Amino acid sequence: MADQWTRFQESLYRSEELGLELDVSRMGFPEGYLDAMRQPMAAAFQAMKVLEKGSLANPDEEWQVGHYWLRAPELAPTPEQRQAIESALAAVKEFAGAVHRGEVSPPGGGRYRNLLLIGIGGSALGPQFLTDALGGAGMRMRPFFLDNTDPDGFARVFEEIGEGLRETLAVVTSKSGGTKETRNGMLAARAAYERAGLEFAPHAVAITKEGSQLHGASAEWLRQFPMWDWVGGRTSVFSPVGLLPAALLGFPVDELLRGAREMDQATRQADTRANPAALLALAWHHAGNGRGDRDMVVLPYRDRLQLFSRYLQQLVMESLGKRLDLRGQEVHQGVAVYGNKGSTDQHAYIQQLRDGPDNFFAVFIEVLDDGAGEPLEVDPGVTCGDYLHGFLMGTRQALAEAGRASLTISLDRLDAAAVGQLIALFDRAVGLYAGLIGINAYHQPGVEAGKKAAERVIALQGKVMEALRSAGRPLTALEAAEAAGEPGEAETVYHLLRHLAANPGRGVTRDAGGAPAEDRFRAA
Amino acid sequence: MADQWTRFQESLYRSEELGLELDVSRMGFPEGYLDAMRQPMAAAFQAMKVLEKGSLANPDEEWQVGHYWLRAPELAPTPEQRQAIESALAAVKEFAGAVHRGEVSPPGGGRYRNLLLIGIGGSALGPQFLTDALGGAGMRMRPFFLDNTDPDGFARVFEEIGEGLRETLAVVTSKSGGTKETRNGMLAARAAYERAGLEFAPHAVAITKEGSQLHGASAEWLRQFPMWDWVGGRTSVFSPVGLLPAALLGFPVDELLRGAREMDQATRQADTRANPAALLALAWHHAGNGRGDRDMVVLPYRDRLQLFSRYLQQLVMESLGKRLDLRGQEVHQGVAVYGNKGSTDQHAYIQQLRDGPDNFFAVFIEVLDDGAGEPLEVDPGVTCGDYLHGFLMGTRQALAEAGRASLTISLDRLDAAAVGQLIALFDRAVGLYAGLIGINAYHQPGVEAGKKAAERVIALQGKVMEALRSAGRPLTALEAAEAAGEPGEAETVYHLLRHLAANPGRGVTRDAGGAPAEDRFRAA
Repeated sequence: MADQWTRFQESLYRSEELGLELDVSRMGFPEGYLDAMRQPMAAAFQAMKVLEKGSLANPDEEWQVGHYWLRAPELAPTPEQRQAIESALAAVKEFAGAVHRGEVSPPGGGRYRNLLLIGIGGSALGPQFLTDALGGAGMRMRPFFLDNTDPDGFARVFEEIGEGLRETLAVVTSKSGGTKETRNGMLAARAAYERAGLEFAPHAVAITKEGSQLHGASAEWLRQFPMWDWVGGRTSVFSPVGLLPAALLGFPVDELLRGAREMDQATRQADTRANPAALLALAWHHAGNGRGDRDMVVLPYRDRLQLFSRYLQQLVMESLGKRLDLRGQEVHQGVAVYGNKGSTDQHAYIQQLRDGPDNFFAVFIEVLDDGAGEPLEVDPGVTCGDYLHGFLMGTRQALAEAGRASLTISLDRLDAAAVGQLIALFDRAVGLYAGLIGINAYHQPGVEAGKKAAERVIALQGKVMEALRSAGRPLTALEAAEAAGEPGEAETVYHLLRHLAANPGRGVTRDAGGAPAEDRFRAA
Repeated sequence: MADQWTRFQESLYRSEELGLELDVSRMGFPEGYLDAMRQPMAAAFQAMKVLEKGSLANPDEEWQVGHYWLRAPELAPTPEQRQAIESALAAVKEFAGAVHRGEVSPPGGGRYRNLLLIGIGGSALGPQFLTDALGGAGMRMRPFFLDNTDPDGFARVFEEIGEGLRETLAVVTSKSGGTKETRNGMLAARAAYERAGLEFAPHAVAITKEGSQLHGASAEWLRQFPMWDWVGGRTSVFSPVGLLPAALLGFPVDELLRGAREMDQATRQADTRANPAALLALAWHHAGNGRGDRDMVVLPYRDRLQLFSRYLQQLVMESLGKRLDLRGQEVHQGVAVYGNKGSTDQHAYIQQLRDGPDNFFAVFIEVLDDGAGEPLEVDPGVTCGDYLHGFLMGTRQALAEAGRASLTISLDRLDAAAVGQLIALFDRAVGLYAGLIGINAYHQPGVEAGKKAAERVIALQGKVMEALRSAGRPLTALEAAEAAGEPGEAETVYHLLRHLAANPGRGVTRDAGGAPAEDRFRAA
């Protein structure tokens, strides 16, 4: 165990300035591993440098990758980009201040007390994570989210807002403006305002890129904030996408940005031992044999970080989950991410982590400052926070005894700057890991397939309904598929017709048979 | 594609009575797979039968496994057990009714409007899932949870409750009564009530087993409800652990129980094709080669089912994540579970599911009834719910095209009975899968290791503090470890001392050095 004290110190990254340590001593790096990886890491550092300078790292989409500039506008490659970032930040702060001071207020008077955020994916996960990590009863507004196209989910949110809708500011976020879930959420919100006798436009704000469908549709709204092609959805949290909600809720956006900026500086170091993101990327690489053979289990011991695993699920899996490498070879790369929070998960799935398959590595996040005023002694000399900390140490120990790998990120405290650091740390680790395995971390070609398949299903529904109406008799799913000119789609047609028949007023009734092929559907 | 229509129907489980279909046609079962698995399945059915009759399926802990009796008390092996279940249910309903009618009310008058649930693991995940799945603005009380030992998390909940604490009913749930997180949550709650000038006991209810520490401590509280050795934490949702919160929030507990009971009946069928849980267990077995080689990704297309993956994470991973099989061989079994909700996750990690490693299978959950009153048309003839449904179909199709396995559970509607069904379906699938791979699904030996390690850390903290105080000079972590008689624990001592030093008033200050070995800590 004296060995562990030595091993711990040998590979430890520690920065008093950042208030952060990263400990990879339990990852089981073989002797000389960091040296052996010096060459590939040097290439990854170089690629990152080129990327930050504004190269088209996203060649198939011809976009730059600019999220690092958001927290250091002086690094943007053109004065126009720098100015766009700076003036967007100023506009965000100015608008939030005006809302807080009541200068921007609901038609008919009063104050905006609620914030309804409409967006999905990169337009939702960042704001949701920030809200949970920094929020509480003291927020300047009460946040609500529409992040899907589930009408039941929509209805539940509007019921919760209730009479408060009049004092609710809606923020619709979609870079392209073409995301159907967000478009539907916006339409559902508009309908809800109208049912309450309110106009939507004077309650609504858009965050979108110039020229998008949403940009046009929101011309008469309260305000428009920009998005840019050179910021990807999953790294957009320090653009208006994340900063506007943060500022409206009353979080210190300058501190968020400062934390991220300082971490960016620390992770530009082209020396692995002095670069926490490089150590993190190497830990992933070693654990998964450079092929994602092990899942990453994220275990922050702090309730406020519960959504971090969900944020990372998108950041890591959408960035690294790729079929082709940069040379066009089929590689099927990726790293699966899941997690929740400690010590809670000790009572859920940590049984499997200790005793089950060796198919993961754990990322422990320790926060030293318990952060909650006067501590409560629950045993003599022992506080609730001591227990939380003790459970982290104990669980980590129990995993190590079972030969399971883990790394530990220690934060001095959890404030806005630390949250900014955490996000920037993983941003950079994702970029460096992508460099190590030679993939493009900044596109998402596989997402299109699902969207297009869904569009075909929506189109198929129209054809099937038409076929059913003109048939004038009950049809089986196969008959309806044939009548719609899609005989190969009988199974999808079956699901479509069952869905329509399950919802009154949609024009379809079902006569159940003994099996799917025997169900008959009629135009009602 | 006509093939898919045939394949779909061949292996489909469909029950009009349950309003449920289970489709494993995209799991890639080889020809004759179900027949080939007939023998092992027969053994699993037999083991389940013996278990339900009350055998000691938990031989190392000498407990029966009785969660099936909770929803069909007439099946309990003894009249005492039957009576215990029935009278607990009656007491739950009686108490909830009395609270709703105001017959049980806060000291000083008024009504109980808030419900503070204090528990962790099996005592939290069930109530949390039920609350999200069935709750909304119409709940009879407003729920809050303490499910950790994070003082900052505790403080946040009490801030949110605010002045409402006087009208808050606290329910403390711990079967053994010895769970530290729950004990700490209870102490934090008591302190919060006392700070507000309120007595805790007349606001508090306990759910625990007779003779436990909590049972003794709660003797003077408002009410006590039973837990029993023969119900495990992760299957306790249909005991008072889940039913009391459900009843207090106003959910129809009889419907929940009915759904589970009917699913139990359907899954007692010793014929795989006619048993959805058997098909589910075989799907897991095939996908993971009987060794958990693939993760289970749970994708319900309904906001209300977002926490189901978290519920299943515990149920599946704590049950199946085992080092030894029943013959004592090292097997390191398990199935990793993660997920969130569709179509939201299409914009997060589905990029990786489609293009990344083939290391998972997806469980789609389709709900046919959109469940939200008057539908909103977002395109001509197309509703928000059509899009949700279309995205499910499209994503499933996109995964299938990439050769990724999935299965689909279709529910006619999502109500309390359906939620009961879903839970019971997975309860049984876990039991049958455990039978197939020959492990005990009803203990959790690995959890103890983490708890014991944590206890040692807490004890170490006391020794270190004593050593530091008597040293009379600043000590390094290694010196403090040596002085505490634990020279091998320098790294843990370093973390302990940093944690104490980060929190004012804990009696430790730190003089930072250039490295952990050079930091010096003093008793303040």
